[in-house]
Amino acid sequence: MEDINLHFTGDLHAIAAANNTLAAMIDNHIHQGNQLRIDPRRVTWRRCLDVNDRSLRGIVTGLGGPGQGVPRESGFDITAASEIMAILCLATDLADLKARLSRIVVGQTFDQEPVTAEQLGAAGALTALLRDAINPNLVQTLGGTPAIVHGGPFANIAHGCNSLIATDTALRYADVVLTEAGFGSDLGAEKFFDIKARAGDLDVASVVVVATVRALKYNGGFENLERHVANVRKFGARPVVALNHFITDTEDEVNEVIEWGRRHDVAVVLTTVWADGGEGATELARVVLDEGVDKPAHTQPLYDPADGVLSSIETIAREIYGADAVQLSVNAQKDLKYLQQQGWDTLPVCISKTQYSFSDDPTALGAPTGHTLHVRKFIPRIGAGFIVALTGDVMTMPGLPKFPAAEGIDVTPSGEITGLF
Amino acid sequence: MEDINLHFTGDLHAIAAANNTLAAMIDNHIHQGNQLRIDPRRVTWRRCLDVNDRSLRGIVTGLGGPGQGVPRESGFDITAASEIMAILCLATDLADLKARLSRIVVGQTFDQEPVTAEQLGAAGALTALLRDAINPNLVQTLGGTPAIVHGGPFANIAHGCNSLIATDTALRYADVVLTEAGFGSDLGAEKFFDIKARAGDLDVASVVVVATVRALKYNGGFENLERHVANVRKFGARPVVALNHFITDTEDEVNEVIEWGRRHDVAVVLTTVWADGGEGATELARVVLDEGVDKPAHTQPLYDPADGVLSSIETIAREIYGADAVQLSVNAQKDLKYLQQQGWDTLPVCISKTQYSFSDDPTALGAPTGHTLHVRKFIPRIGAGFIVALTGDVMTMPGLPKFPAAEGIDVTPSGEITGLF
Amino acid sequence: MEDINLHFTGDLHAIAAANNTLAAMIDNHIHQGNQLRIDPRRVTWRRCLDVNDRSLRGIVTGLGGPGQGVPRESGFDITAASEIMAILCLATDLADLKARLSRIVVGQTFDQEPVTAEQLGAAGALTALLRDAINPNLVQTLGGTPAIVHGGPFANIAHGCNSLIATDTALRYADVVLTEAGFGSDLGAEKFFDIKARAGDLDVASVVVVATVRALKYNGGFENLERHVANVRKFGARPVVALNHFITDTEDEVNEVIEWGRRHDVAVVLTTVWADGGEGATELARVVLDEGVDKPAHTQPLYDPADGVLSSIETIAREIYGADAVQLSVNAQKDLKYLQQQGWDTLPVCISKTQYSFSDDPTALGAPTGHTLHVRKFIPRIGAGFIVALTGDVMTMPGLPKFPAAEGIDVTPSGEITGLF
Amino acid sequence: MEDINLHFTGDLHAIAAANNTLAAMIDNHIHQGNQLRIDPRRVTWRRCLDVNDRSLRGIVTGLGGPGQGVPRESGFDITAASEIMAILCLATDLADLKARLSRIVVGQTFDQEPVTAEQLGAAGALTALLRDAINPNLVQTLGGTPAIVHGGPFANIAHGCNSLIATDTALRYADVVLTEAGFGSDLGAEKFFDIKARAGDLDVASVVVVATVRALKYNGGFENLERHVANVRKFGARPVVALNHFITDTEDEVNEVIEWGRRHDVAVVLTTVWADGGEGATELARVVLDEGVDKPAHTQPLYDPADGVLSSIETIAREIYGADAVQLSVNAQKDLKYLQQQGWDTLPVCISKTQYSFSDDPTALGAPTGHTLHVRKFIPRIGAGFIVALTGDVMTMPGLPKFPAAEGIDVTPSGEITGLF
Repeated sequence: MEDINLHFTGDLHAIAAANNTLAAMIDNHIHQGNQLRIDPRRVTWRRCLDVNDRSLRGIVTGLGGPGQGVPRESGFDITAASEIMAILCLATDLADLKARLSRIVVGQTFDQEPVTAEQLGAAGALTALLRDAINPNLVQTLGGTPAIVHGGPFANIAHGCNSLIATDTALRYADVVLTEAGFGSDLGAEKFFDIKARAGDLDVASVVVVATVRALKYNGGFENLERHVANVRKFGARPVVALNHFITDTEDEVNEVIEWGRRHDVAVVLTTVWADGGEGATELARVVLDEGVDKPAHTQPLYDPADGVLSSIETIAREIYGADAVQLSVNAQKDLKYLQQQGWDTLPVCISKTQYSFSDDPTALGAPTGHTLHVRKFIPRIGAGFIVALTGDVMTMPGLPKFPAAEGIDVTPSGEITGLF
Repeated sequence: MEDINLHFTGDLHAIAAANNTLAAMIDNHIHQGNQLRIDPRRVTWRRCLDVNDRSLRGIVTGLGGPGQGVPRESGFDITAASEIMAILCLATDLADLKARLSRIVVGQTFDQEPVTAEQLGAAGALTALLRDAINPNLVQTLGGTPAIVHGGPFANIAHGCNSLIATDTALRYADVVLTEAGFGSDLGAEKFFDIKARAGDLDVASVVVVATVRALKYNGGFENLERHVANVRKFGARPVVALNHFITDTEDEVNEVIEWGRRHDVAVVLTTVWADGGEGATELARVVLDEGVDKPAHTQPLYDPADGVLSSIETIAREIYGADAVQLSVNAQKDLKYLQQQGWDTLPVCISKTQYSFSDDPTALGAPTGHTLHVRKFIPRIGAGFIVALTGDVMTMPGLPKFPAAEGIDVTPSGEITGLF
Repeated sequence: MEDINLHFTGDLHAIAAANNTLAAMIDNHIHQGNQLRIDPRRVTWRRCLDVNDRSLRGIVTGLGGPGQGVPRESGFDITAASEIMAILCLATDLADLKARLSRIVVGQTFDQEPVTAEQLGAAGALTALLRDAINPNLVQTLGGTPAIVHGGPFANIAHGCNSLIATDTALRYADVVLTEAGFGSDLGAEKFFDIKARAGDLDVASVVVVATVRALKYNGGFENLERHVANVRKFGARPVVALNHFITDTEDEVNEVIEWGRRHDVAVVLTTVWADGGEGATELARVVLDEGVDKPAHTQPLYDPADGVLSSIETIAREIYGADAVQLSVNAQKDLKYLQQQGWDTLPVCISKTQYSFSDDPTALGAPTGHTLHVRKFIPRIGAGFIVALTGDVMTMPGLPKFPAAEGIDVTPSGEITGLF
Repeated sequence: MEDINLHFTGDLHAIAAANNTLAAMIDNHIHQGNQLRIDPRRVTWRRCLDVNDRSLRGIVTGLGGPGQGVPRESGFDITAASEIMAILCLATDLADLKARLSRIVVGQTFDQEPVTAEQLGAAGALTALLRDAINPNLVQTLGGTPAIVHGGPFANIAHGCNSLIATDTALRYADVVLTEAGFGSDLGAEKFFDIKARAGDLDVASVVVVATVRALKYNGGFENLERHVANVRKFGARPVVALNHFITDTEDEVNEVIEWGRRHDVAVVLTTVWADGGEGATELARVVLDEGVDKPAHTQPLYDPADGVLSSIETIAREIYGADAVQLSVNAQKDLKYLQQQGWDTLPVCISKTQYSFSDDPTALGAPTGHTLHVRKFIPRIGAGFIVALTGDVMTMPGLPKFPAAEGIDVTPSGEITGLF
């Protein structure tokens, strides 16, 4: 485990190096005469590090006088939040990677024209830094089955799926490919279908919705699960519910869920992977193969980006979140106007929303309807190829807790790492 | 070449990760109640990146309110300038690595007591991050000979030699081990003998002093080369001069150097490695073996650190630089007092000095004597195990030029990187 | 005019000096060991200047190393926005001034306890700086009538009335005292009655509501004016409407307003002060004397602060603004809790609201009803003796326009100032 | 006393207002499109306050995003250190004041061309703010004699004398005018003759050198006093020594000084002003009238600025300081080149030097000779009309001590200020 968590194959480091090289080139350009007339206050490109360092969230750089750059406000995100991570995960090959890197918008000029990585002459060098990182990494699970580990974009300001190249590679080698999409049908699945599958032209045979008795109780019954199952069907996919067994679950509780599935025409399979490893999911695998993989399916995205980003959001809000209306803040309205001026509003949307509710209010459990989705701000991610719509505060650089796990980590003289749990 | 320059085995990334984890733990400690009473203005530990980014030289961190850390002035160095790089290169094994990491001094309390990485509980985690980076990397040259590439501490604020573990590993496998010590006898050789060889108890059979006709002219004759040869002998080592042939050198010029060597009892061998690769140095290799390796030698450091850091500097200044006196600035005097209070002034000294002159005045060519060495500031590097004495401005974070090389770098569709030259 | 605008009697400078002396004492206290354990991130006291300087809105101070203070985020307001201006205007005498200055809360400790000017030992020195500024300034109008000019607190984050001492002094010397309360009945009058008159135990004979045909049109008819008249009556005061004549007003328009007054039992008097000076208001003066001054009145505040600040806001919102509900943001809820913990929530409230509408939405003209008042944040002004409730963005430091008026100002050789208009 | 120290006639406030208006106009210009292409990193104009506030020495302004100005490093000085204070004190009338204000250099463009207050359109407005402050203030001493109090430029980065207009006014009304020039003959007198008297074409009848037994002992005998007397004579002035009596001085000590004066042909008069007020200086007054005022004198400056600022410094260093040589730092050499390029190097020089020694080494007491004067930096004060040459660190914003005097200041209910001593 620690081999994967510590440096692994260096992909994260390569992404950070590319991200930060671009940042250095921006500030250097401004420092060296600023031919592109970049407004230092409108540089949106941030640096990144793969360390939880809250003190880097808000910084002022370029201090120390005329030889030390131009002062401006900026900050660091963690590497997973870098647009380059999202780009690496959506690029189809090296040429597409470079094209996407070229399109990255790093900020605006004094006339509020966008400035791209290409204008800074950075695309080639960034591609070079990522030349090896673009290749998927093959590892094996504790059970010995092959797994491809590649890419990890943040699930809030990015699309939260592993790389398209990894999925594509797996599809060429395996009969069945399983991939994860972080958070429920409203976040992970929606972004998978509308962003990743759209970009890679992927067809999905079956969708496993993971449920737990605890989560059902927390959400006050089955309506939350029902919504997830219904949502999955809206993309044309066939859902199977995996009931992840907890040792505190009673038999009655488990049976109630299975019974619910029967009533709603969806297979519910108890899995015991925590206790039994891969063995605990063989029944699930069988059902998925029966229900999904062996029958033809044609999944598709939910909306047509050509209708405009506001329309896309409205469709998602109505169909997936159960909302009645979408409201843009004054700032979001200005942002939208800018997107339209630049011709960017026909890109797919990546909605940043709480995972605790179908709505943007984390306390609204179950399957809320009739609510309003509030969009606070739009962030163009032109390299990644989507527009982020923020509906709440987003934390892109975590902080360490009062007692950081690092304090408990050690290495034995023979090189064993201890204290990771 | 690009495989080594781009990420390589990730050692630099691992060092940066360790360096920046420590930085995050410092700021987190201050943020979470500051039990150690660290004075935010006296934190000397800086963050690092392996990017030339002048805008990060001077920054203010922790902005944005009470939840975003504590505001303070700080900055980034390039990774090669991190004390952790020096530590990795001087550690004898994993246990020593951890012990050195523990001793790192990151700043001072409000009472001006030193604060260490150990007090922050960081040593174990840092060691874990470096567990693999401590192992040397075996590569081969274009000529097919094996080479160990491992570690690259800055030659100005650190000792500028590759890792002790790499040298030690090589000594176990090879009959002859060749290593480089950056800059002439006053910097590279002095630090090699007084810091690295002292730490690793290394005995050196022979020292190759590389000379060029161009450098001899620049320095106005042979007195500069004579001083280098004499300096090498002060460590008990036998010098051989390699005259690195330039195509513009005349035969008369070459002969004059060889003749000079005869008069001064030092072998001078013409090498043509630029034109002929390894073949161009076979005569040099023969002479080194004859002159050095096959005869017993007993090299030793120049000074005894127990006499105090000022005495060490005076010895180096007098014996190696040809200086008459050492003068401390008001700040350096304060620093020295602090070193003495803490019992740190008996560590070896690592003098940061211009490579353009034996003196601290870059315009004093040849072999100046009678000058005064001005020490501006001391920096304790307790983890590395030496005290840096600054005699001029030190640039620890380079900036990009007006036309960054990155703008010319590209990747072909097949993955070849172009534009590196 | 320029004698009043340029420095005048130095009151503004004295207030700025007091404000900034307190700021220096705060930062000095933190720098000198911070015995009170003030959290630099929770210092809310800002510096001030009587210059429109947008670049001072957000600054980082204390940079340059351990001898130059402690780095923290801060900023400057214009002097009128200083709490000390509000204090000077509400103090009843020198002793009360000092008591109020003592109670100023400048920020919080690391344990989030409030820190006062008294704890910093600043109250005496601040009082000394204001010893002369507390005395009202007697000037005369262009028409030769005496006028007292004293104090000018911002009408958004303070109560917007001149000093209590000035009003009190005038009451001792004159038969009739006229004073101004900035912005309509919802802001100026409400704060006059609920803050200033409450503090000074003032009884008001008559209230002149100034109307214009242009404003009536802008608000779409008489309902806005009706609300103002009704509001004034809620404080127990007798309103008289002064119709401020514009040369573009037609006779029909004027007559319509007078007629409206007849129907609503309120005197409407046409005034022509812009064209005729004091002569243009003699009829108004006569009516005010008839309607108001010569008949006994007993005005009173609208709410009892002892019911809590939220109750006070609800009363104002319902009675004066026509709102149905008051909603606190998450931050405002936290602030309120803190106010309650500190026992501050029984102070009068000073609501910061747009002057363009009775609601907090500047586009809602006329006399809106049924709306919700959104409170974004509470600011305790313990020295002034009220709690500011912010319902929108507040600009406390203006910026200069693209072509500052200053560029047109000049002085003739004989000392005449030109270009002020 | 407190009436003079607290606000007085508002001159300091007016100067601060003018200084800070100019600062606001600079930042506003940069913010509003920056037509003059001012380099934010090369703005040298600082803001000022009349408060000892060390946290304002080094700040970053313009934070908070595109609407809040342009981020840059800056700081505050105390008002006495503002160039506008020096200008007010050297201006001959309102027209000259405006001309000087126009010439103020506030920084440089991106092409390193100087930027003036005139280019910013600020001169008229600044003059308007100072229209009244330019007039001298007439007060009376405790003994009832008239005194003009006007202007107080810092004696280190300015010339340390009161205003020329005040001296000129006094000369028109009085038979004898006495003025003070801060610090000894090497600072106060030199700047008085070379800057103020040159600007105002003043002729000086007599110079009183104030001596104390304590200072003579501190400086190890009479050689320090001898140098001061000799220096005064170099300007063509007749010195009289006032021996300021301390109650600890013995009769023998006093007699020794008087005897020394006899031997050196300079009158020494014992004064007891501390104990006796004006009465204690009547004998001094008599001698000054006899020795100086009633005999014609023709004083003159020491050097001709047309020879260049370096020549001026060399003359002062040799003639007044007793130095052998003047050495410019690398930065000072660059500054000098810039002064020459701009044609500024023929302005008089204002040397900032320690008052503890004739040399730039505060520990060199007595009358040192043969030393080198080290110039660290030049600051052009084009509005004031001189070039500042820094020979050490200059503190232009004091800090409060651990126990600020402000903590002991109070006001009695009747308005008496206490605790000023």
